[in-house]
Parts: sequence; structure tokens; C-alpha cells
Amino acid sequence: MTHQSLIFTNDVADAIGSLRESMGNPSAWVLMDENVAGLVKPRIEGPALEGVRSIVVPSGDSHKNLTTLSSIWDALQKEGATRHSLLINLGGGVITDMGGFAGATFKRGMRFINVPTTLLSAVDAAVGGKTGINFNGFKNEIGAFREASAVVISTCFFDTLPREEVLSGYAEMLKHGLLSGREQYDGLMAFNPSAENADDLLPLLKESVEVKRRIVMEDPHEKGLRKALNLGHTVGHAFESLALERCRPIAHGYAVAWGCVVELVLSHMQMGFPADELRRFSSYVLEHYGAYYIGCADYPALLEYMRHDKKNDSEAINFTLLRDVGSVEVNCVCDEEKIKIAFDLYRDLMHI
Amino acid sequence: MTHQSLIFTNDVADAIGSLRESMGNPSAWVLMDENVAGLVKPRIEGPALEGVRSIVVPSGDSHKNLTTLSSIWDALQKEGATRHSLLINLGGGVITDMGGFAGATFKRGMRFINVPTTLLSAVDAAVGGKTGINFNGFKNEIGAFREASAVVISTCFFDTLPREEVLSGYAEMLKHGLLSGREQYDGLMAFNPSAENADDLLPLLKESVEVKRRIVMEDPHEKGLRKALNLGHTVGHAFESLALERCRPIAHGYAVAWGCVVELVLSHMQMGFPADELRRFSSYVLEHYGAYYIGCADYPALLEYMRHDKKNDSEAINFTLLRDVGSVEVNCVCDEEKIKIAFDLYRDLMHI
Repeated sequence: MTHQSLIFTNDVADAIGSLRESMGNPSAWVLMDENVAGLVKPRIEGPALEGVRSIVVPSGDSHKNLTTLSSIWDALQKEGATRHSLLINLGGGVITDMGGFAGATFKRGMRFINVPTTLLSAVDAAVGGKTGINFNGFKNEIGAFREASAVVISTCFFDTLPREEVLSGYAEMLKHGLLSGREQYDGLMAFNPSAENADDLLPLLKESVEVKRRIVMEDPHEKGLRKALNLGHTVGHAFESLALERCRPIAHGYAVAWGCVVELVLSHMQMGFPADELRRFSSYVLEHYGAYYIGCADYPALLEYMRHDKKNDSEAINFTLLRDVGSVEVNCVCDEEKIKIAFDLYRDLMHI
Repeated sequence: MTHQSLIFTNDVADAIGSLRESMGNPSAWVLMDENVAGLVKPRIEGPALEGVRSIVVPSGDSHKNLTTLSSIWDALQKEGATRHSLLINLGGGVITDMGGFAGATFKRGMRFINVPTTLLSAVDAAVGGKTGINFNGFKNEIGAFREASAVVISTCFFDTLPREEVLSGYAEMLKHGLLSGREQYDGLMAFNPSAENADDLLPLLKESVEVKRRIVMEDPHEKGLRKALNLGHTVGHAFESLALERCRPIAHGYAVAWGCVVELVLSHMQMGFPADELRRFSSYVLEHYGAYYIGCADYPALLEYMRHDKKNDSEAINFTLLRDVGSVEVNCVCDEEKIKIAFDLYRDLMHI
């Protein structure tokens, strides 16, 4: 875990080249989806990728499954990869998750590096060692904990992303800011991700990834502290599930932003999180993300989704809450009446 | 790794019951093949296994594949297993390898214990954390390193095994004796596994498993010392492959016993391994295992198999050799002329 290099650069080809060299120039494969193969890969072509073969898989979360995984293993095997070879996962979270799992299991583990091409995967998926695939429609049901040997993080790909994608990733950065402390948080609140400029974003992104890395290093297998990273996710996942049921899916990061608002309301009610910070945060979210509409009639379904979150040990609903910005408490149980009141207050704050 | 319990007992049901209790009585599943379900499982029925559900898969190495693995994941998912549940792998190496991999990857890792029912899996497969399945006909191509939470080792199942199975497992014990030192080795040479009595075997087995555990603890991911456990396997695997090509497969342990003879010849030639020990070992093998027939015409094929062993980093053929009983040298390269001479001497020693 501690040996992982995090490289922040806008010369990705050069970074990959140096990494390969430091590993003794192993045979290498780059895994990507069809979109990345067309749009992104050409940007990093050059001597550093000479002799590197490509494995291209279909795009999208619906292909993050055993069939695609099996095709990756198959390609590695047929083309003679060994446990000393290198797999380069170039893409968003689907690719870093699935490629990480392929690398963790091919010949019981080959080396892999992650090169996230979306803000969300840079800030969230590429670091932390959670790898896996969906199975029978359940997300990340099969997988392993395994860190990439290195993660190369660059903002140079982000201009290929739609604005919604950038905002989605930025929500995880907001979450990291809330967990980390006032300084980082204030920096994020002062930034407008929609008018984003890659050069200005890089230092914020670097701070943000470091938050995750620190937490994961202390608790790689999510026995305690790592649950801090679930801030906003208990409610966020329920919003995502409800949206999916309504056949109008929402982006993960948006759900997290709205989930954070509800969970900060709970933090205020249960842990004394300051009311002015709650208002400041919810205004920021409303301004940049808009509001996710819920009515009283949705509360039972939302509670039901939360009870079945795989992070729960039992029927009780578990939250990560804050006493203040940077002061975190994991494993907080809130009763259903309180959660309903928090939904009411969320609707007030969101002008619903 | 250090937290793994190794339990030697002939009251397996009681041991499983205590383990479950120490884990807080999690929901549990027992994985086994059809043979074990019919012959072995009834022996451990009782209160300790109450409420434990069964997952039964087809028998044999040909079913150690993605289809069977997927059916295990499927059963766990459909029956509501969580990452806190327990999987009990009851069987030979196929079951402990495949069940270990299922456990290592279901929800990114649930707890599992191994209860080996064959001597070979007790002494070799159940301890050491190598899990996996075959893929596209390549053995153990996909897998992970992951130790069982506990291994319950008993000789009480072995009377269900054919004599050939017991001898096959005993060959790995001989290998451990060669690696460990004179005392353990002499004990093994003085024992007749064919006239085997389960009670007499248990102390020898315990010593033998401890050898593997010590080596694995020092080098879990096979970066150096663990390669010691490959003694006899470079040649043994080539014998197995040749036998398979001839459509007359041989038991793994037999191949290891014969492979050890060739590799002790190499040890004698290259490292000064004592000639009288070589003769003593080869006589023991000839008496209990007979000889595997090879002629000069087979040498090129055997060399070719050895060059393609997945443990090789390059084209050179790698061996673990001994200076003496208990004095081990890993990463020894032997040239092909020397290997051919060793095959000649093997044929002399085996009266071929």
C-alpha cells in the first residue's frame, strides 16, 4: 500500500514511460473502452507506448461484468502476458475497477497502473484498491482489494468530458473537503467547477486525492476509518436507486452531493454540525447541481433502499456524520423518524 | 497471515463449531463436490453444522473453472451471504483452491476456512493462500493470494481415499522433509504410507504442514524463499504434461516424487548433495511409487515443457536445489546438457 506512487502530471506519456522503465520495461497492455480508444488514447501515443498492445472493451457500466472480464483475461493469456507484465488501465471507474480486478487475479496477480481519464475516477476510483465487477445486476459484487502499483493523475483529459461528468467528480472532492478540514473545504467552496480550468483544478485535485489516500492507508479493508469515505453515500445510493426505479437515472456524483446535504442535516441534528456551514454547503450544491426532487411519498422507498445498503451489518441504517468540517464520526445509527425529518429539512434547503 | 489458525484434530465437527462461535456465529455455507457430499459430509453432521447450507459442485479438476466458480458466487448471492458470512471449503485441492478464490472475491472478500479431506490438500493446498481456477485449459491461471481464516486438518477422512491418493499426498510430505532437515526426513523415510495408520500419520502431517506454513509466512507472494516449495516440481510438472500428452495421466504427487529424484541428481551434480542420500531417497521412491518410464526420445519434449513453466522469468530453466537435506538454494539455473545427464542418471536409479 505504501509503495504506491501517485503521479500528478500533464505529461502522461512521459510518466508511463518512466514507470515502465523503473519496472524493467515489462511487456505491457493498455486496457480501455471504445470511447477512450477513439478520443483519448491518441493524446498519449508516442515512444512511451511503443510495443504496448491494446485491449479494447465495450463502453459503459453494463459491460462491467464477467463476460468482459473474461475477455480481458483471455486477451492477456493469448498474447502471452506473464505475472511480470504490466496492465495499464486507461479510463473511468469502470475500467480502473475491472482492469484492477483483472490484474489482481491474472496468474494470481500481475502489476497494473491506473490512468484515470475522468475527474470522478481520478478522485475516487483510481486510488484505494477497490477493484471488481458487477454480478447478476449487483454493483461491485465480485472483486478484491488491490492497490495499483502507480496512479498517473492528469487533468489533461478532462476537456473531453461533458460538464455533468466534471461536476460529478467534483462532488467527491467536496466530500473529501468536508472530511479533511476547513482549509481544503474553503478552497473548494471558492471554486467554480463549471467554469473549470484544468490548470487551476490540478492543485485542488491533488489535495483531494491525498485525503483519500491517507484514509485508505490507515484502513485498507474498510474495518473502521475508511467508512468516513461513505459520507453522503448512504442517502446518495438511495437517491440513485430511486432514480433508477423511476427510469430517470442520475449521475453518481450528483447523488453524493445531494446525499451530503441530507447527511449534514443529520449531522446538525445529531452531532451539532454548525447550521451556517450547512446552509453554505446546501446553497453551493443548489447553485451548481440543482435539486433532486423528493416528496413525502418517497420516504418509505428511500428508507427501504438504505436498509439494504451492503455496508450495513444489520437492519439499522448506518451513517458517517460530522461534528464539524474535518471532524468525522463513523458508524452513526439514526432512527427512521430522524431521517424523515432530515428529508423534510433537505427539501426546505433545496427549495422543494 | 499470522492470524491463521491451524487446527489438528480428529473431531472436525467440534472444531468447526468452535471456529464459528469465535467468529460470532455468522451465517455459513459449506462448499463440497458430489463425492464429498455423499461420502464425507455425513461424518461431520451434527449441531456444529446446524443451519449451515450446502453448495455442491461437480467433482474433478475439469470443473475447476469459471462456470463452477460463477455458480458458487451465484448461490452465495441468492442465499443472502454477506461479507461477514463464512464459507467452509470441505474437500480436496480443487475445492480449497476454488472455494478460496470464491471467498476471496465475493463482495471483495468474505471469510473462509479450509477443511481438507485428502492428504494432498491437507499437506499442500489448504495452507499457503494460493487460490484459483483453471482458465482456457491452463492450470490455476486465474486466482489470488488469500489465506483461509483457519484450516482444520484431520486424518479421519483418509480412509475414504484410494491408496494412490494417500501416496500422492505423502510425496509432498517427503518434499517438505527434504526442505526441513534430517530429523523430519528420517521420520518420513522410516514410515510406510501404504500400511498407513491415521493415528501414526497425524504427528508427521503436523510437522509437515508446519514446514510449509513457516516458508509461506516468510514469503507469502513467492518472491524468493517460497520457491523452495517448488522442489521436485519443475521436473514433476514436465512429467505430468508428458503423461497427459500420452493420454495416460499420472497423479500429481507421484510426479513430484519422481521429479524430486531428478532434481536431487541435479543437486548432487551441481551442489554436492550427498550421493548416499540420493540413493536412499530414490530407493524409497522406487519401492513405494515405482518408476515413471522415460527414454532418450522424450528428453526434448520434457525440456520444452520445463522452459514454458509459468514459474520461469525467461527461457532459462529454474530449479530449487539442495546442498544437503535441509539446505536449500532457490533460483538455480541448470543448462540443458546437465539436465539430460540427470535424466540418464534418474533412469539408472529407477532401473529403467
